[in-house]
Amino acid sequence: MNIAKNSAKRLGVAKPIATEYDRRREELVGAAAMVFKEKGFAATTVDDIGRRAKMDRATVYYYFRGKKELFREMVNEATSENVHMAERAASLDQPAREKLRELIEGLLQSYVKHYPYLYVYVQEDMLRLSKDGSAWGKQMIALNHRFDHAVFKIVQEGLKTGDFSSSDRDPKLIAAGIIGMCNWTHRWFDPKGQVSSTELARVFSDLVLNGLLLR
Amino acid sequence: MNIAKNSAKRLGVAKPIATEYDRRREELVGAAAMVFKEKGFAATTVDDIGRRAKMDRATVYYYFRGKKELFREMVNEATSENVHMAERAASLDQPAREKLRELIEGLLQSYVKHYPYLYVYVQEDMLRLSKDGSAWGKQMIALNHRFDHAVFKIVQEGLKTGDFSSSDRDPKLIAAGIIGMCNWTHRWFDPKGQVSSTELARVFSDLVLNGLLLR
Repeated sequence: MNIAKNSAKRLGVAKPIATEYDRRREELVGAAAMVFKEKGFAATTVDDIGRRAKMDRATVYYYFRGKKELFREMVNEATSENVHMAERAASLDQPAREKLRELIEGLLQSYVKHYPYLYVYVQEDMLRLSKDGSAWGKQMIALNHRFDHAVFKIVQEGLKTGDFSSSDRDPKLIAAGIIGMCNWTHRWFDPKGQVSSTELARVFSDLVLNGLLLR
Repeated sequence: MNIAKNSAKRLGVAKPIATEYDRRREELVGAAAMVFKEKGFAATTVDDIGRRAKMDRATVYYYFRGKKELFREMVNEATSENVHMAERAASLDQPAREKLRELIEGLLQSYVKHYPYLYVYVQEDMLRLSKDGSAWGKQMIALNHRFDHAVFKIVQEGLKTGDFSSSDRDPKLIAAGIIGMCNWTHRWFDPKGQVSSTELARVFSDLVLNGLLLR
């Protein structure tokens, strides 16, 4: 978030009207996301994105240096918003079970809200894309790490406080399992389908909290 | 499997010795798999694969028509073996809970046995790659469908027989969650790391069967 936006909010001032330039950039980001989702980042060309946005190649290059910049623009805000959600869930004043429910629901809702931006990011292997040594890459790796750590902290806390049954459970493996279950939805979950993200979050939370076996 | 191999097995005849040609092809498949895993299929070039296998471009093209054929060669056997494992687990004469344990362990072991072939396949989005209308693509879609169906059948059976607590649970969503948990390991699980596939399978099975909450 930039400072101008923040102070506008604080002062109750209306958001500045988006310029034609901003609108065109937004349109291009939206078009790029759809093509990335269908073809994958590596196979997508600037021509593909132009065709989808009904702009020619030169126009695309007027707004963005290339598909990499489009991709980054697309994931920046969504990713950091998502990390804040996870850290908020982890620091709630509630038992671990509630924190976990909150986080799973928050994550699935985030995928829907930022559809298909965050899913494209998941699909493209965030860590591989971030390993280019750029400042952006480092920031993304740090955000990913913070997200994983928030999930880990909730599981670890539940095992420690006795909210979760412990024995010899490894919180890292459990956290990886839960994250995997949610992230894999990028392959099959359709936000416009019959199942809502709230309903799916309930199924996943019940599964990892209560298990399948009769109690 | 081809008929010659089958009858050799039945007759107790030794496997035919691999020719230099077969060996070179295998080497190339192995090299391609490593590069696909690191860079992704779309970003990988035949030159990359040649460099990794220490062969020049022309030599690669002597053995394979291109990276697509290398990819297919890589996943064919592993994928169908994996489907047979899942269908075997689903038809065991045991309660659903045992079938599910068997399937989760079988799948994770399969990822290790065929490392990194199956992981590359998972990473590259099997369904997207198979949608090229080719006979190979259709066969892969059918295999994927059979795998998913085996998991679905186990969950559905458990809910029906009362081995799993049912209420209003949707077996499709539960199956998708379990498959996601396992498939996501392609992003983080290192078969040469400290955790074995057996240990990981135990953690995942305990998680989905017993849940995290104290009983």
